[in-house]
Amino acid sequence: MPSLPDMNATDVVDMARRAAEHQAPRDHHIHNEDLKPALFEWLCRMGDSSLILGHRVSEWCGHSPVLEEDIALANIALDLIGHTQMWLGLAGEVEGKGRDADALAYRRDAADFRNFLLVEKQNGDIGSTLMRQFLFDAWHIERLRGLKGSSSERVAEIATKAFKEVSYHVDRSADLVIRLGDGTDESHRRMQKALDSHWTYANEMFTDDGLDEAVAEAGIAMRPSGLKPAWDALVDEVLAEATLTRPQNDFARRGGKTGERHTEHLGHILAEMQFLQRAYPDASW
Amino acid sequence: MPSLPDMNATDVVDMARRAAEHQAPRDHHIHNEDLKPALFEWLCRMGDSSLILGHRVSEWCGHSPVLEEDIALANIALDLIGHTQMWLGLAGEVEGKGRDADALAYRRDAADFRNFLLVEKQNGDIGSTLMRQFLFDAWHIERLRGLKGSSSERVAEIATKAFKEVSYHVDRSADLVIRLGDGTDESHRRMQKALDSHWTYANEMFTDDGLDEAVAEAGIAMRPSGLKPAWDALVDEVLAEATLTRPQNDFARRGGKTGERHTEHLGHILAEMQFLQRAYPDASW
Repeated sequence: MPSLPDMNATDVVDMARRAAEHQAPRDHHIHNEDLKPALFEWLCRMGDSSLILGHRVSEWCGHSPVLEEDIALANIALDLIGHTQMWLGLAGEVEGKGRDADALAYRRDAADFRNFLLVEKQNGDIGSTLMRQFLFDAWHIERLRGLKGSSSERVAEIATKAFKEVSYHVDRSADLVIRLGDGTDESHRRMQKALDSHWTYANEMFTDDGLDEAVAEAGIAMRPSGLKPAWDALVDEVLAEATLTRPQNDFARRGGKTGERHTEHLGHILAEMQFLQRAYPDASW
Repeated sequence: MPSLPDMNATDVVDMARRAAEHQAPRDHHIHNEDLKPALFEWLCRMGDSSLILGHRVSEWCGHSPVLEEDIALANIALDLIGHTQMWLGLAGEVEGKGRDADALAYRRDAADFRNFLLVEKQNGDIGSTLMRQFLFDAWHIERLRGLKGSSSERVAEIATKAFKEVSYHVDRSADLVIRLGDGTDESHRRMQKALDSHWTYANEMFTDDGLDEAVAEAGIAMRPSGLKPAWDALVDEVLAEATLTRPQNDFARRGGKTGERHTEHLGHILAEMQFLQRAYPDASW
């Protein structure tokens, strides 16, 4: 069976070793039958957004405008897919039906995916890709910062590993948004267009629903709406420096994280992403 | 199992009925063990080029610049996929391993496809799509004209059905190449660019190999190189009227019809085209 890439970071290797030795932190949430359905889906939300964005970003590999960007984007894609492996691995454990991260990534169809619509969007030009990345990173870093203190030790552990990498992601995407926004007339125009295009998709990241409520009440994760003030502050600061105008539109395109309504792009992503596993089920290498 | 679309043309319905009643023309070629490997692959060449071009053309559905074109392209795609059903159906019969047209279309991977590289090419703009269509149609009509007199009755029967539809395809694509080539400066420029881009791919249609030789010696089909003079005459006439310049380049990009070397595009086409069958094997509806 084709596998998600190995992660080589020392801490992740440690984590895997501890898990193999059954020394993973005990975590009563993982075994709470009442919470299980909500927690499983919430973990899929975390893993799926990382997986789909990771796949999108990986499409730039070999196509970026400059070599440094090509390498940076490929590394970010790998980080995100590494996070996916942790989130979906834990999701499979919580579900308890024998599905591992690979099974969840490669054998679910579009209706079962729980990622934000924002990350399904086509890459567009490099400016559009970087603006989407920044809007996501600015959410991601706040999400992970809160999860480091999660009442679920397993969730906190994953968040702690991912936080270090995402700190780098957001520094980098913020810097590039500023350089391109406050760059030439052409780059400024493109960045403003990308911002306007992504805005209502980004708003989905702050929508709350009953599932978020259940997970918040268990102390596992803050409600998405609670992440908004910090996101607003960072986004406003970066957009100001980038000489870009923040859209005045609070409308949120919804349906991605609930799985109710994905864009047409998700099916195309999955067709490519899952081809190997679909065409050669259980193949190993 | 998802099926290739039903064909409603009366003659095709008749053909299916006769086949069901075991009254299909007897054809000693179909049962010639020595010829079987070459004939199977030659039939895949016919079916695969129609299938892949049909899929490419279908991508325009709902996206064409004018409604009439949208409907026309969708119908051409259906015609081509209908031809695929006949060619690959016969291929499966010749192979004798229980694979039908659906199995051949939806369960082979890229290396087993035998289509021309030309038909894998991305659509580009509508001018590029129409130029590719004309270059293919001009080959297709000559190919089918010859096959109507094939020593294989089954091959001749399929060619006779397909010839009527392809006569319409080539009339239409030739007319549009003329209108756009001899149109505005912009449309002329784009059509010349499309012609230059497709030319070395089109040359693959006239390459001969040992397999073509075996099928030609059995009287089933003319050698591809033998189709060139009639193609040249039609192409020269249409390009002259379209005020376009024929490229002076006899180099042929090879590898598609032999399966030795496909473009990167074929895998992406198959990932989308085969998703349903790959994700839900043997599903019926």
